Amino acid sequence: MIETPYLLFLGDAPDQLAAKVAQGIKDWRPENAVGQFRLAGCAATVGLKDMTLAEAKAAGAKTLVIGVANRGGTISQAWKEVLIEALGMGFDLASGLHNLLGDEGDLVAASQVNGQTLHDVRVPNVQYPIADGTKRRGKRVLAVGTDCSIGKMYTALALDAAMQKRGMKSTFRATGQTGILITGSGVPLDAVIADFMAGAVEYLTPDNDDDHWDIIEGQGSLFHVSYSGVTLALIHGGQPDALILCHEPTRKHMRGLPGYGLPTIGQVGELALTLARVANAQCQIAGISINTQHLSAQEAQAYCEKIEAEYGLPTVDPYRHGAERLAEALEKL
Amino acid sequence: MIETPYLLFLGDAPDQLAAKVAQGIKDWRPENAVGQFRLAGCAATVGLKDMTLAEAKAAGAKTLVIGVANRGGTISQAWKEVLIEALGMGFDLASGLHNLLGDEGDLVAASQVNGQTLHDVRVPNVQYPIADGTKRRGKRVLAVGTDCSIGKMYTALALDAAMQKRGMKSTFRATGQTGILITGSGVPLDAVIADFMAGAVEYLTPDNDDDHWDIIEGQGSLFHVSYSGVTLALIHGGQPDALILCHEPTRKHMRGLPGYGLPTIGQVGELALTLARVANAQCQIAGISINTQHLSAQEAQAYCEKIEAEYGLPTVDPYRHGAERLAEALEKL
Repeated sequence: MIETPYLLFLGDAPDQLAAKVAQGIKDWRPENAVGQFRLAGCAATVGLKDMTLAEAKAAGAKTLVIGVANRGGTISQAWKEVLIEALGMGFDLASGLHNLLGDEGDLVAASQVNGQTLHDVRVPNVQYPIADGTKRRGKRVLAVGTDCSIGKMYTALALDAAMQKRGMKSTFRATGQTGILITGSGVPLDAVIADFMAGAVEYLTPDNDDDHWDIIEGQGSLFHVSYSGVTLALIHGGQPDALILCHEPTRKHMRGLPGYGLPTIGQVGELALTLARVANAQCQIAGISINTQHLSAQEAQAYCEKIEAEYGLPTVDPYRHGAERLAEALEKL
Repeated sequence: MIETPYLLFLGDAPDQLAAKVAQGIKDWRPENAVGQFRLAGCAATVGLKDMTLAEAKAAGAKTLVIGVANRGGTISQAWKEVLIEALGMGFDLASGLHNLLGDEGDLVAASQVNGQTLHDVRVPNVQYPIADGTKRRGKRVLAVGTDCSIGKMYTALALDAAMQKRGMKSTFRATGQTGILITGSGVPLDAVIADFMAGAVEYLTPDNDDDHWDIIEGQGSLFHVSYSGVTLALIHGGQPDALILCHEPTRKHMRGLPGYGLPTIGQVGELALTLARVANAQCQIAGISINTQHLSAQEAQAYCEKIEAEYGLPTVDPYRHGAERLAEALEKL
């Protein structure tokens, strides 16, 4: 659990895209951030107030979150000075970089002076159990996709927001670095040891109120040969009551696999449902989420209508149309 | 790669079952073992000549293999004395115990004196790549099961023996501790980091002659919620040309999961084939392997005949009937 609120470190981000993590925090958990910290030459902003470390401290910030992906994943000397100063002032640090905070001797030393915590969210800090498949109370919904990086996290966060707005009980459950930094907790599933993957998902989505929904962030795809095992661990560890199928209609091949075409939404739904029913015989497909970023507004609307007619399931782009209809579908289940 | 031949360390094994790993080496790779080493009170034998360390050394043994599973998985003081003496005489050590050799300071120190190697086959010692799904030359067959611990390793080893006997080119590819100790190499798949599981299987089964078969040891089951992700990584990383379906007909529920019934052989075949064809559109089911250890000879025969008639696939218990018909089926593919 990362202590909130955060000060978002944008460093010397070369462009807006590099600040994706910070933007995600600002978009989805604005209450978690008091401001942003930028170095000279920073070309990104998430539209929060620029603050010094002292100003952020005075505003109540507990953790300096590295909200920027740098090239090569290394921690530069220019960053180091700020990070060490922040530790000295009592901030914890949190990062999803490949270059772990905990591998940097000077950061470790500085953190030990006053007992600050270095959160490397890319690596697990919990001994997860082996999954035991016991049926848990409460409800769970999982986003599964035709491919990787297709909008599953966005869909889950938008669904969480829509459910809260309807007065439903829900919790977004992060399974990747960005989601963990946005919400302050979760399981970095792709870094978990094989035997404990499904157990980590059970750990992440424990017993809850009967009318509470865990919205589990999906990873990979059953049809992506590099990561499909992670996807199946989510399906079996999450024992979802409902699935949301995610798709991006302009993609030509599976991400990073030029020889592999995308499956249809129907193929993903059928296979995911068959597998999900091993762990939860009641599982149903609740709706379809389309990532229409490469379509015009008109094309997006037409595509969603076509898919909705084809599958008979509520179909939206949560970014363009909101996730209300998906939340409504879950409420009806 | 563990250097052969071995001296098999049976320690103070309380019964024959505890010496399962040593027995596996003796059964499947007798040429890999020069003899066995037993302590006072050892209640097991694998029928090899009892040797002192010096006798084994003289017979050419390179590695002392801990061929016994002890209770609790710890390395006792009585064992330590032998292991340290062996290191001093130039033996490497190999073990699949939870208690790692490399975590024992006195063993590490003794191994460093003459540069001996401590092989802990339960943990990976390779940085596996992320799977890229590239089609590889050569053929691959994978054993998939209705459940865990159902005879997949035995089936694969028996198939390998039968194929060699027919003059086919084949290699057993170990994916678990016991298989790795038997053959001297492999991938401890359940201990690999999630993102690299399928890549580890690709690494294990590289390009080969067009008429060469990799026989990949299966793990878990698509229907076992604790380990299914590992099974899918084997299916997608292994890109098998053929599947062998494994089943044990008297099992009442999935191993360790009292609430979960077993799927039928047909359900496993259909699901595994659908998933396998994502990575290899030519994949076929070649045959069925039944573990009939809890049936009489007559019941076993009748059960195999019934399944063979039901699915139209060669069906044998490799232990009772040999794996020749499975090898023959692969040859015909």
